[in-house]
Amino acid sequence: MPYTFSNLIEGARPSEIRELLKYASQPGMISFGGGMPNPSSFAIEDIKQIVNDVLTVSWKYALQYGNTGGLPELREEISRMLMETEGFAADPQEIIVTSGSQQGLYALPKILANPGDIIISEAPTYIGAISSFNVNGIRTIGIPMDEFGIKTDLLEKTLEDLKRSGKKPRYIYVIPNFHNPAGYTLSLERRKHLLELSSKYGIPIVEDNPYGEIRFSGEKVPSLKKLDPTAEVTYLGTFSKVMTPGLRIGYLVSSTEVVRKVNLLKQAVALATDTLSEYIALEYLKRGIMKKQVPKTITLYRKKRDIMLSSLEECFPEGSTWSRPDGGMFIWAEVDKSIDTTAMITKALEKKVAYVSGSSFFPDGSKRNNMRLNFTFSEDDQIKEGIMRLGEVISSEMKLVKAA
Amino acid sequence: MPYTFSNLIEGARPSEIRELLKYASQPGMISFGGGMPNPSSFAIEDIKQIVNDVLTVSWKYALQYGNTGGLPELREEISRMLMETEGFAADPQEIIVTSGSQQGLYALPKILANPGDIIISEAPTYIGAISSFNVNGIRTIGIPMDEFGIKTDLLEKTLEDLKRSGKKPRYIYVIPNFHNPAGYTLSLERRKHLLELSSKYGIPIVEDNPYGEIRFSGEKVPSLKKLDPTAEVTYLGTFSKVMTPGLRIGYLVSSTEVVRKVNLLKQAVALATDTLSEYIALEYLKRGIMKKQVPKTITLYRKKRDIMLSSLEECFPEGSTWSRPDGGMFIWAEVDKSIDTTAMITKALEKKVAYVSGSSFFPDGSKRNNMRLNFTFSEDDQIKEGIMRLGEVISSEMKLVKAA
Repeated sequence: MPYTFSNLIEGARPSEIRELLKYASQPGMISFGGGMPNPSSFAIEDIKQIVNDVLTVSWKYALQYGNTGGLPELREEISRMLMETEGFAADPQEIIVTSGSQQGLYALPKILANPGDIIISEAPTYIGAISSFNVNGIRTIGIPMDEFGIKTDLLEKTLEDLKRSGKKPRYIYVIPNFHNPAGYTLSLERRKHLLELSSKYGIPIVEDNPYGEIRFSGEKVPSLKKLDPTAEVTYLGTFSKVMTPGLRIGYLVSSTEVVRKVNLLKQAVALATDTLSEYIALEYLKRGIMKKQVPKTITLYRKKRDIMLSSLEECFPEGSTWSRPDGGMFIWAEVDKSIDTTAMITKALEKKVAYVSGSSFFPDGSKRNNMRLNFTFSEDDQIKEGIMRLGEVISSEMKLVKAA
Repeated sequence: MPYTFSNLIEGARPSEIRELLKYASQPGMISFGGGMPNPSSFAIEDIKQIVNDVLTVSWKYALQYGNTGGLPELREEISRMLMETEGFAADPQEIIVTSGSQQGLYALPKILANPGDIIISEAPTYIGAISSFNVNGIRTIGIPMDEFGIKTDLLEKTLEDLKRSGKKPRYIYVIPNFHNPAGYTLSLERRKHLLELSSKYGIPIVEDNPYGEIRFSGEKVPSLKKLDPTAEVTYLGTFSKVMTPGLRIGYLVSSTEVVRKVNLLKQAVALATDTLSEYIALEYLKRGIMKKQVPKTITLYRKKRDIMLSSLEECFPEGSTWSRPDGGMFIWAEVDKSIDTTAMITKALEKKVAYVSGSSFFPDGSKRNNMRLNFTFSEDDQIKEGIMRLGEVISSEMKLVKAA
């Protein structure tokens, strides 16, 4: 056999993450490690009311097996929402509800590629995408980013090189808004260039947009799917950051052909999504809670981002740099080249502060001196305190390295 | 590439099922087709109370991302429940919560086998298992059943033949209690024989037990996992039939090594299970609702089984036979050999009665004259009426065939 799935699974996620999780719940620990929304962003009273109403009126359906593709009314509401927020038309038949975005991320390499095929991503990229590529036996080529997102000139060069050697990547995976982990937003110019390249080389795009609605500053940049409705773009969205992540509701928008295949795969992987959660999401949209809640979440998180940015300015040693995200949940910091942030994590945990080291986000685990800092979960004063601790850890690590 | 996953997915589920789903919601349709619990079996008032309490006390956790492996307290409660109901000890570390049983069914061929490998199942077997084998590129060998379950003498012969040709199946998949679709229960004698064969040939067993608690008559037969705690048995359970199926909570019990691999795969496939549903399941167990509700469900379903059995006696033409299940949700009927139940389904749908034809449940789609009849979802009078309609459809089909 060319691929031992059992072994592919082994490599799916860096063991460091598991290490981190063990420590993250220790008393006094300040964790910038996870990707968790702040519970203050949950519209708990509205959700309570919704659940009570659903279990009074629709319980026979809300507790029964649902459709694999998702509640039809929910797909209609998502279609309406996408027109309103993203400005593109998606027929409910082109939408499938997924059990979190991750289910879509898992399905796509399985449907659009075969083990051994190449998929292109940004470098760094989302750790859950790396997992899904790994367990599906995909060869991932990562294209570097800067503050304007994926470097499309390098992408073009890579595509040309691959073409010359007779290889065709199955798709290009990007997170255009407030990138996880990098915090960068893909510029309009590069979005257009990316779409041109997709068309020129005949390679579909997978546009992952979990944070798009959570913008603190700057102007909205149109999604790839809106910019070119004729392009082969599969769009991934989720309720995790705009409702709650515990109710596992995501969605995938693509051609009816791709949606049909995701549906067939979903029948084998999990059957329907949690029906009660689908009903909650439906009412969350229908009652306008989403529209009411998102601005509150933005205000909450903007302040946290600002606190983290000014704390970094104050506490991180010279030679460090970081992204200044216009939205989302993460800041991406680069520290002195002498430092291996993976090796440093034990020392940070001793000082009761956690982060995820940058190497976890590179398909080849290459870069050693980055870290991802989540600013949404911690309380405001914890952010200041945590960044101070982390600054001290970095400074003393730099001294150690220089002394050696 | 040896396997085109995209094509494997295509074959995952018979198109007939989709056809059926289109019709199942028509007005006046009596459907014995689905595998749905009756909403009257849902403890709606208790569930409402639980959700309200959870969203008052634990909302910060119940709406947040959960552990991939499942809520630790829920795994402890499942461990306690298994000791009480099945009489075997399972450490919480040997349990992983899955998003419905189907997630476990999908994970196992991926973890324990590679594409092209052989897995042995009963014939017929659960359609969701066939899907998961198909999309994972597994070669399934089905062993015939009779009213005492899988014919272990034929299994032995198959294992011996395979061994002689140098082939080793990765595991044996069985549904020992109130089989889906066949309704049969594996006898104690055959359970022992199956365990002997597993040990002799070094082949693990996957024991799928979704209906075990729903017994109407006869004596409980010990689970394979209880009969031989030293055997390599992975046990699959679910809350779908004893709580509600819309809250997608299943569990898998195995060695810590298998559980660890399922966990790693789950990180790529879906991340955590729906947290709110986990909290509901936890309280459902802790408050003793499960214990209170299951006897009510048994009373409800026993009557439905009895009505279906006597209606079959009354309305099905001579030459038909059917299983007499001691529990679960399904009766398996065999009609005159001249009839192809797959071809007949359109006529049944015209008469507003639905079933799933038997061929869907055979890994090779071979047998043509069976049907699976669900007796739990329909109302009592619908069962009578539906079986009458179906009897007429079969009789007129027999006449047609004979006239031809």
